[in-house]
Amino acid sequence: MNCEVVAVGTELLLGQIVDTNSSWIGERLAEAGIDSFHQTKVGDNFDRMFAVISQAIERSDAVVVCGGLGPTHDDITREVLAAIMGTELVINEVVAERIRSIFTDRGREMPGNNLRQALVPAGSHVSPMIPGTAPGLCCPVGESSGESSKVVYAVPGVPWEMKVLMEQWVMPDLAERAGITQVIKSRTLHTWGDSESGLAEKLAGDIARLDESGHATIAFLASVQDGLKVRITAKASSSEAVSQILDAEEHIIRQSITPGSVFGIDGETMEAAVLKLCRQRGDTLVTAESLTGGMVAAKLASVPEASDVFKGGIVSYAPEVKFNLLGVPEGPVVSVATAEQMALGACEVLGATCAVATTGVAGPDPLEGHPPGTVCLATAVRGKVESMQAELPFSREQVQQFSTLTVLNNLRHRLI
Amino acid sequence: MNCEVVAVGTELLLGQIVDTNSSWIGERLAEAGIDSFHQTKVGDNFDRMFAVISQAIERSDAVVVCGGLGPTHDDITREVLAAIMGTELVINEVVAERIRSIFTDRGREMPGNNLRQALVPAGSHVSPMIPGTAPGLCCPVGESSGESSKVVYAVPGVPWEMKVLMEQWVMPDLAERAGITQVIKSRTLHTWGDSESGLAEKLAGDIARLDESGHATIAFLASVQDGLKVRITAKASSSEAVSQILDAEEHIIRQSITPGSVFGIDGETMEAAVLKLCRQRGDTLVTAESLTGGMVAAKLASVPEASDVFKGGIVSYAPEVKFNLLGVPEGPVVSVATAEQMALGACEVLGATCAVATTGVAGPDPLEGHPPGTVCLATAVRGKVESMQAELPFSREQVQQFSTLTVLNNLRHRLI
Repeated sequence: MNCEVVAVGTELLLGQIVDTNSSWIGERLAEAGIDSFHQTKVGDNFDRMFAVISQAIERSDAVVVCGGLGPTHDDITREVLAAIMGTELVINEVVAERIRSIFTDRGREMPGNNLRQALVPAGSHVSPMIPGTAPGLCCPVGESSGESSKVVYAVPGVPWEMKVLMEQWVMPDLAERAGITQVIKSRTLHTWGDSESGLAEKLAGDIARLDESGHATIAFLASVQDGLKVRITAKASSSEAVSQILDAEEHIIRQSITPGSVFGIDGETMEAAVLKLCRQRGDTLVTAESLTGGMVAAKLASVPEASDVFKGGIVSYAPEVKFNLLGVPEGPVVSVATAEQMALGACEVLGATCAVATTGVAGPDPLEGHPPGTVCLATAVRGKVESMQAELPFSREQVQQFSTLTVLNNLRHRLI
Repeated sequence: MNCEVVAVGTELLLGQIVDTNSSWIGERLAEAGIDSFHQTKVGDNFDRMFAVISQAIERSDAVVVCGGLGPTHDDITREVLAAIMGTELVINEVVAERIRSIFTDRGREMPGNNLRQALVPAGSHVSPMIPGTAPGLCCPVGESSGESSKVVYAVPGVPWEMKVLMEQWVMPDLAERAGITQVIKSRTLHTWGDSESGLAEKLAGDIARLDESGHATIAFLASVQDGLKVRITAKASSSEAVSQILDAEEHIIRQSITPGSVFGIDGETMEAAVLKLCRQRGDTLVTAESLTGGMVAAKLASVPEASDVFKGGIVSYAPEVKFNLLGVPEGPVVSVATAEQMALGACEVLGATCAVATTGVAGPDPLEGHPPGTVCLATAVRGKVESMQAELPFSREQVQQFSTLTVLNNLRHRLI
């Protein structure tokens, strides 16, 4: 079974919007074991959409068309699909009623052109859910005989609407058509401590073993901002069985990589993990930042309900703020001693049991004789400080991001 | 003239990497007045690459193939292009010598497979610059007669290498082939103060006028993080003439929109604009953040050489930090009075002449009876405070981003 993706929208071709939808859909298809050999962007133009979608139907078993289902006149995916099916657009009264009620519920009048979204090609199936104001469409196509083996799905281009329809409707339907009776699940381990190549080396044996057995796969995804992700995907005949495989593989993988480097599972961020550990131990947390200029604090504050643990921070960008507010002795500031006193000072001034602190040279210029990329990171836990110094061969932005993640990870290791 | 883009790489189809290259190329083509009707992703597979690139040649005047020029065996763009041209791969000695010297200069030994990158289809032209270790290729294709009217460009998939080759080599060559003797330039006005629809309304007359005269175009790009961008693109026979048009249009557009809403030109950020204004006036700047939890400070610290103006900040996430450190009177903290005292307190504690301060309810839960999205923003300039309160119908993240940009913009207005 293979399925290709057609993303519709002139704004995608003009580069005004990056097409992230087809990447996301490609990822879901790969997880489900469905091949995707082509992904195409095409503008809001009848003839070109007709040609591109027709070709997609010809060379693939299924097609997902994303976009062009809005209420305005340049949204013509419905018209193109009807033409490809050789049929007419008809009003679907169930959809029309739902669209009307969406507007009524919000106490707003429905613009007349929104009813365009209730037009569907005769013979198509409409998704049972309407996340926004447009339903998804499933259009049988291909052989002109009664039984059609191919389908085109149409989903809106608004990412969250597309995701709801793909996850709850298109993917299960595709799996059924593909005769995939197995359940497929993924688990992502978020790690920090190994490099991408280091991780690949440590897991080479596991990857080879899984390649042979075929009951799970491993993929890597690196990011200076979120850490290195290891995604395990497995198939089995039941949800319980697949969970068992994932549990077993997670256990094996954790033993192959640097101990304690997994900080979160399935979207749990470093900042959420650190806040959770503090909460469990009854600790409170503050920050003292020079190098990272507030990035660590901003990450902690981005977590909803951080406020029971995260008390605040001091951005001591200027040396005199370090001296006057954090009790750092006057002198050079790029040193682990400075970072340590910043952490202790922040605990005292802001009233907390734990602190992270960063100082160093983000670049582009050297400072106090230290090259750009020199970072000094410290953590304080109930009066005891630890620190490290490193030289990072990165850009200014990457130095700041890497230090943010690392100093939080250092604290995490101490709290475990 | 039209040009389509083929992005090569199985990792793109699998969604492991989002294809931002073809969006970026699409934007450059649009600026140059070259149409791009199709953009396709295809995996590292000979037959499918051959089919996709051949079709692209058939329906377009030019094709840019992006990716598949690396040194490993799954990088087969060279082989596919040679097959399409009906020719052989030959070693280009100039390129081979350059690749060797790149490794020698870095004191590293060249892995043997890097010489693959010196293989080029016989009859193709090689780019004069090699930003990484692979040159760009320009392959005449199409009619089998001596004079070929169509070309395929191949550039590496590494974004910065691709950009250098596109800007310095492909775009000028394409313009020449398209007979575009005119110079095309863009200017982007970064604005904050009008909504996207408000801006579109205010500029409707200008857009209509330019649609008619055809000597410039206007495009919008909205972002809660960077503000609303208005891009003017113009063509003329010389660089001076096009600059004159851009100057004239910028002048007209500035008069159509909210006075003072333009905070930067061509990539100048809000934070850089504010720091520059402070610097010019001899002011120093600090932050006091609750709602935004360090995001304003992090933005200011992301600007290289911010340190002469930006002294630091206090993230007063917990109420007691506001009371103890910033001198806010004990009591409710979601108020403009609190924001004002935070700004004044930060100036005093951190020693600066200007401050911005944020408090409010990022959400998801209400606080002190105020709904999520309630924001109180204050600015202090040499002892005088001003403030505002608003209710934003946004998500937590957007509330924080919007407030960050707005409080900096408020200070900017006061400093002008």
